[in-house]
Amino acid sequence: MSDNKIVFLEQSKMPTHYYNILADLPVPMDPPLNPATKQPAGPEDLSAIFPMDLIMQEVSTERYIEIPDEVRDLYRISRPTPLIRAANLEKELDTPAKIYFKYEGANPTGSHKTNTSYAQAYYNKKAGIKKLVTETGAGQWGSALSMACKHFGLECEVFMVKVSYNQKPYRKTFMKLFGATVHASPTNLTNAGRKVLEADPDSPGSLGIAISEAVEVAVQRDDTNYSLGSVLNHVLLHQTVIGEEAKLQMEMVDDYPDIVIGCAGGGSNFAGIAFPFIKDKLSGERKNLEIIAVEPASCPTLTKGKFDYDFGDEAGMTPLLKMYTLGHDFIPPKIHAGGLRYHGMASSISHLYNQGIISASAYEQLEVFKAAQIFAQTEGIVPAPESSHAVKEAVEQALKCKETGESKTILFNLSGHGFLDLGAYELYLENQLNGG
Amino acid sequence: MSDNKIVFLEQSKMPTHYYNILADLPVPMDPPLNPATKQPAGPEDLSAIFPMDLIMQEVSTERYIEIPDEVRDLYRISRPTPLIRAANLEKELDTPAKIYFKYEGANPTGSHKTNTSYAQAYYNKKAGIKKLVTETGAGQWGSALSMACKHFGLECEVFMVKVSYNQKPYRKTFMKLFGATVHASPTNLTNAGRKVLEADPDSPGSLGIAISEAVEVAVQRDDTNYSLGSVLNHVLLHQTVIGEEAKLQMEMVDDYPDIVIGCAGGGSNFAGIAFPFIKDKLSGERKNLEIIAVEPASCPTLTKGKFDYDFGDEAGMTPLLKMYTLGHDFIPPKIHAGGLRYHGMASSISHLYNQGIISASAYEQLEVFKAAQIFAQTEGIVPAPESSHAVKEAVEQALKCKETGESKTILFNLSGHGFLDLGAYELYLENQLNGG
Repeated sequence: MSDNKIVFLEQSKMPTHYYNILADLPVPMDPPLNPATKQPAGPEDLSAIFPMDLIMQEVSTERYIEIPDEVRDLYRISRPTPLIRAANLEKELDTPAKIYFKYEGANPTGSHKTNTSYAQAYYNKKAGIKKLVTETGAGQWGSALSMACKHFGLECEVFMVKVSYNQKPYRKTFMKLFGATVHASPTNLTNAGRKVLEADPDSPGSLGIAISEAVEVAVQRDDTNYSLGSVLNHVLLHQTVIGEEAKLQMEMVDDYPDIVIGCAGGGSNFAGIAFPFIKDKLSGERKNLEIIAVEPASCPTLTKGKFDYDFGDEAGMTPLLKMYTLGHDFIPPKIHAGGLRYHGMASSISHLYNQGIISASAYEQLEVFKAAQIFAQTEGIVPAPESSHAVKEAVEQALKCKETGESKTILFNLSGHGFLDLGAYELYLENQLNGG
Repeated sequence: MSDNKIVFLEQSKMPTHYYNILADLPVPMDPPLNPATKQPAGPEDLSAIFPMDLIMQEVSTERYIEIPDEVRDLYRISRPTPLIRAANLEKELDTPAKIYFKYEGANPTGSHKTNTSYAQAYYNKKAGIKKLVTETGAGQWGSALSMACKHFGLECEVFMVKVSYNQKPYRKTFMKLFGATVHASPTNLTNAGRKVLEADPDSPGSLGIAISEAVEVAVQRDDTNYSLGSVLNHVLLHQTVIGEEAKLQMEMVDDYPDIVIGCAGGGSNFAGIAFPFIKDKLSGERKNLEIIAVEPASCPTLTKGKFDYDFGDEAGMTPLLKMYTLGHDFIPPKIHAGGLRYHGMASSISHLYNQGIISASAYEQLEVFKAAQIFAQTEGIVPAPESSHAVKEAVEQALKCKETGESKTILFNLSGHGFLDLGAYELYLENQLNGG
């Protein structure tokens, strides 16, 4: 670990604006559709569950959108996050590649999700909303929103996918500690949940089901909104502070990545690190830049899904989104990367993939944990199972460089730590983890 | 959280030397005694289990001892650690006091313990040692030593107090992930352990017992040493980087504490924050500085113990140390602050307390968790149950300021995060935690 180079960016250089990739798409994305009329969905289709500021961000094509001061103040708790040269990992792999990672796990909730939770809670508070309802997979998004709500004095209710609720009991406690109410989804509290439980009382749940439950609760009250941790344009927009900072930090070490890697469930941390770099690729400045979204082999949305209109949730309450999808009723296997167990992929990322601007890969659970342990032992950070997918791809790319002798610069996003996922690591160490 | 002031110290200003309080004691400490001869123990009494470099640090009276480059390189992974103004906590308490905390939890293992584990592993490696054996309470020390051993290519074996082993299962996994072997102590692997189990097969264990087991294993092999996470002079010495940094950071905000607070089990994190400040008190520069060691009411070593010679371990294998002690066979109640469940207190701290240079307080488990939740909700960091004792005292002092109207500056050490202690928080939130 002695050779690690940590690149700190001064707080005064923290980005003042989010980067909106919609301004730079060579071909525009297909719009979301109202599920009843099949016509493009307008702001009014979303106003029952989102505040107007966020809806405007959702549809904006402005290139840069200012970050409110109140949100930047909160970012200062842990931003800018460090960019770290993984010199010990390089040594262990004996690779000529240079590996950097952006570390988003050293903030209070342990993942990148606060980048958008602070913003979403802020805009909802501003709109007079009293309560936010949401879904969560592994619990990182729920944790981030719980903390943001506590800060802005909002109530918070979380539907946590049941399999993760059982796999990661500490996450539930974390959310409760910050005052949130947490349910294992599917529940008997909603029509959507009851319908699933009738068909399968032992349903492990899915993000799609949890979203349906949360939306159903949110639409019932005027003072209550829904909040989503990934997928939508405005959520991905908020995450671009990651990549904007990383670009400045790569500049500080006089380098620029040949390959940018992020794990992708709904796509938010991937977009966060990748979009600001994709801007350079689209402008022609960095034509050869490779950008890779990594997913679990057991939930292979980009690599094996269909590019089509589908619902964002299980019950079909959301607008239809054009995206790579495994079908909104797909129930992913019970892998421990709960944040990657989503049937679809953000429309913007799906569009970029369909256009050949980014590529994708998929790995099985066991090989991902193996890479995670090597990373932990060399770099001293236990990665979240989700983030470990990015680690695995970075290792693969570095080993490819070893074969070819190329000294490529690899940048990946370490979206969160795995302190609350050690239950899964215990199974891995005891050879009780399936391949997934 | 928006008003937090984080004071970062540049890496170039990281301390180059440890501060050794033994150079400045107005009255010298009573020496450790050889248990057989009752004569002062010399270096030879320790050479079976410690490398000579550490033994020399143990007895040194040099004021400043240089930190080896190899150790400073490792410190750079997470040092200097931030000093944070707890502005939101101040607001919540409505106090005129200024509250600062030094945050030692944002490093890979999550506590201050790496400050000494890196140094101990380094000196043992240098002495040709192949394996280190140790005890651990809550598991933070065991985690830190596991990681340090992995870095220096040493084997690591950990005897973890059984009650903590069961309360904090993720800690065991963390150590295993870094290649350590972990036992729930008392075990059947040692005479010391077997003896305890014969008397009480359900013994929850204690740090004293775990130390006996680890020492017993270490003395049996020439290539194996014992490593201690607290209590001894050299261990406390390594922790003074905390206070040395904090002094520079207080200077950066043009302030100086009126009160310095640390929780105290064996005493290492307390010494780390306090000793460099005590230097100013002893020199007369800061005569009125208050320094408070905080302990659990259920293991009240300073506040209710006897100042006498006693063994550092249960079986009586260590030298006799002059210290406040509850008796080396004291089995503390099963509170969740596993790191504070030790029958004795470091000799140096005991001496300072006996001389009236520092004071002490004790709190019950429930009130400590209550303060911890307030801290988490306002400052966004879930504190370890041990560190929460320091939080509680800081809150008490701040509330006292509210009564008197004084605007004192309070500094405490937040020695670690509580991500792996959320099991205890769950019990607290569900009203299943006893007063302790």
